[in-house]
Amino acid sequence: MGQTITEKIFSEHVGREVYAGEIIRCNIDMVIGNDITTPISIKAFEESGREKLANPEGFAIVLDHFIPAKDIASANQAKISRDFAMKHNLKYFFDEKDMGIEHALLPEKGLVLPGDVIIGADSHTCTHGALGAFSTGMGSTDISFGMITGGNWFKVPESIKVVFNGKPKEYVTGKDLILEVIRILGVDGALYKTLEFTGTTIAYLTMDDRFSLCNMAIEAGAKNGIVAYDEITKEFLDTRESLRAEPKIHYSDEDATYCQVIEIDVENLEPVIAYPFLPSNGHPVSQAVADEIRVDQVFIGSCTNGRLSDFKVAAEILKDKKVARHVRLILTPGTQKILRDATKLGYIDTLVDAGAVVSNPTCGACLGGYMGILGDNEVCISTTNRNFVGRMGSRSSKIYLANSAVAAASAISGYITDPNSL
Amino acid sequence: MGQTITEKIFSEHVGREVYAGEIIRCNIDMVIGNDITTPISIKAFEESGREKLANPEGFAIVLDHFIPAKDIASANQAKISRDFAMKHNLKYFFDEKDMGIEHALLPEKGLVLPGDVIIGADSHTCTHGALGAFSTGMGSTDISFGMITGGNWFKVPESIKVVFNGKPKEYVTGKDLILEVIRILGVDGALYKTLEFTGTTIAYLTMDDRFSLCNMAIEAGAKNGIVAYDEITKEFLDTRESLRAEPKIHYSDEDATYCQVIEIDVENLEPVIAYPFLPSNGHPVSQAVADEIRVDQVFIGSCTNGRLSDFKVAAEILKDKKVARHVRLILTPGTQKILRDATKLGYIDTLVDAGAVVSNPTCGACLGGYMGILGDNEVCISTTNRNFVGRMGSRSSKIYLANSAVAAASAISGYITDPNSL
Repeated sequence: MGQTITEKIFSEHVGREVYAGEIIRCNIDMVIGNDITTPISIKAFEESGREKLANPEGFAIVLDHFIPAKDIASANQAKISRDFAMKHNLKYFFDEKDMGIEHALLPEKGLVLPGDVIIGADSHTCTHGALGAFSTGMGSTDISFGMITGGNWFKVPESIKVVFNGKPKEYVTGKDLILEVIRILGVDGALYKTLEFTGTTIAYLTMDDRFSLCNMAIEAGAKNGIVAYDEITKEFLDTRESLRAEPKIHYSDEDATYCQVIEIDVENLEPVIAYPFLPSNGHPVSQAVADEIRVDQVFIGSCTNGRLSDFKVAAEILKDKKVARHVRLILTPGTQKILRDATKLGYIDTLVDAGAVVSNPTCGACLGGYMGILGDNEVCISTTNRNFVGRMGSRSSKIYLANSAVAAASAISGYITDPNSL
Repeated sequence: MGQTITEKIFSEHVGREVYAGEIIRCNIDMVIGNDITTPISIKAFEESGREKLANPEGFAIVLDHFIPAKDIASANQAKISRDFAMKHNLKYFFDEKDMGIEHALLPEKGLVLPGDVIIGADSHTCTHGALGAFSTGMGSTDISFGMITGGNWFKVPESIKVVFNGKPKEYVTGKDLILEVIRILGVDGALYKTLEFTGTTIAYLTMDDRFSLCNMAIEAGAKNGIVAYDEITKEFLDTRESLRAEPKIHYSDEDATYCQVIEIDVENLEPVIAYPFLPSNGHPVSQAVADEIRVDQVFIGSCTNGRLSDFKVAAEILKDKKVARHVRLILTPGTQKILRDATKLGYIDTLVDAGAVVSNPTCGACLGGYMGILGDNEVCISTTNRNFVGRMGSRSSKIYLANSAVAAASAISGYITDPNSL
């Protein structure tokens, strides 16, 4: 009986063929925690009485949400993870020394791989599905179970096959594809299901596009998002300094079972803007332009769109231009390497000349953490993943989600702008 | 009757010879506000019923303390200054677009000049005395008086003559000179007095050193600190893109009256470390080394020591070295230009390779704002200006003030270290 890629990954981990709906237990290849969620996992781990992690090289802590510490509480919070990392001499501990947002940093470091089963105490852990892994967010106590046993239990999810057809137009990116999927499915349309992304469009998507695509699978309620390994995945892996392990490559069978199939005509898709207050509230950019939406802040960053290609396109659009007087443009690179590469390639100089400010890598403003919080009634166009009420600050502020080209174009005029119109 | 440089600046502004102790009223060349203090000034300005600033080109707002906004309160706070700047089409308004700490940014931009009378709603406004200006911090309502009238009243201060003798040893900087002065005088030893810095050492001090020196005059309670114009001042001014006005150059007369004279033997001075919890609690670095002081965090930045030379010396010391595993090294450049220059010169790459994280320019951690707040019982060696209880975070944390070379050396070992010992 045919299997989906997600079923195959679990089958390989369980040692027998398993199918959607089965409850299984298997080992985990990488367990991930951050500065917010890990302290709870550490508490549960220590209450278990265990002295050692079941698989120390399969556990990574990334301090990314409030680091360098924004306040005393976050400093004390981070200290719990720091002390644990020192005590256990953790191989994969990332703090101020090699900063990055976990979902940008771990793929960059070759720590998440095709065929892996990955859990992380952060909802956007689904990002790593872009590499052909099963990767999902869990609560902190589920993470502690992973720390204690090296494994966890799962109900193998049913899969929704998303078929993207055709070549995207200029300035249509992975972000627009996922905003369109969420617009169609709604924020709970894929609850506990896999979003398996396929179709002729995939070959046109860079790894950065695929990370954006899988990153927001959770915004449709999905358990995971996944893109099968191909030449583009291979090239990404080949250019890592090292890989944690050998990739295990799986493909869905032709006769695999899907609970739903969605086809999306990408050739005719415009950039998508998710209006307040849900990621599913997507509108074509032409509609947003007609609506004359004035913005106070433009934010380019986050685990969704804080990668090198985001700063590249923003720099191309803002070259020799100026950010509107009433607008602030905040750039938050996903990792130290992204920042350094963007600097070496001249993107940062171009963007700062235009009037941007660049923060250190951090989750920062995306979750209302710091580095660009919105005041009362302020409006932001943001490349992040959530536009819930108050997500980035004041409950009376508004967030429009978009790709980085639309965000950069909007910084020039101070109104939501179609980059194709420049 | 002989006059001090400070008396001469006021005399020139009043149009007659004035002396210490006189209460005078004069015009102000530059009034400065920041994101914390300006909203109060704006409120008082608006309550005055005035429509226009008395001297719009003599008023600068610099958003530097909590920008990009760390939280909703700071976003709303900044909005007051932003709206005022837009309404008055303010020429000198600096926000995310051209970020910098006011006391680093304004000299860089040629906006504060020799012979100026400058007031700012920030205690470290005394920094600009390094250029041979009278510059002092005032409260927000005094600033509003400057906004409304273009002037203010002053009691002409008495002067303490500080005579620095000899060439400083390597790694002895302007920061060490001022920490030594404060050690001698105490934190209230110069209340409402001028600290006039003179002596053969001055010729060895770069402008960066002089800014550090004058910056901390307030930590001895001084009304202002001042260094007379010389070739080094001239070169600094000559390399500005533009100057706000013509410099007016004054020198103290040989027979000027001083209320006190302090002589400091700089040739035999070691780097000075101010132990918790007062800037006057200075000890030679050899003592600090003997005391084996372990640090959790190293902070290089602020209006005191966040200039290009600070990152240069830190990069020289940290080249091909690594920050100790238990230490975080946080760098906060004073301005966007400092950050860009430090990047172009390779300092930032060297420092990040060593394990540093670099924030955007901001007052940040110095005042316990954000970007490196200390948790309970944490210890920080910092190039900032205040080590009061809880200044950078938890009330149980401890701050040791030092120059950037000592800070960088300490990052390698994780203990306070003499850079000469490396």
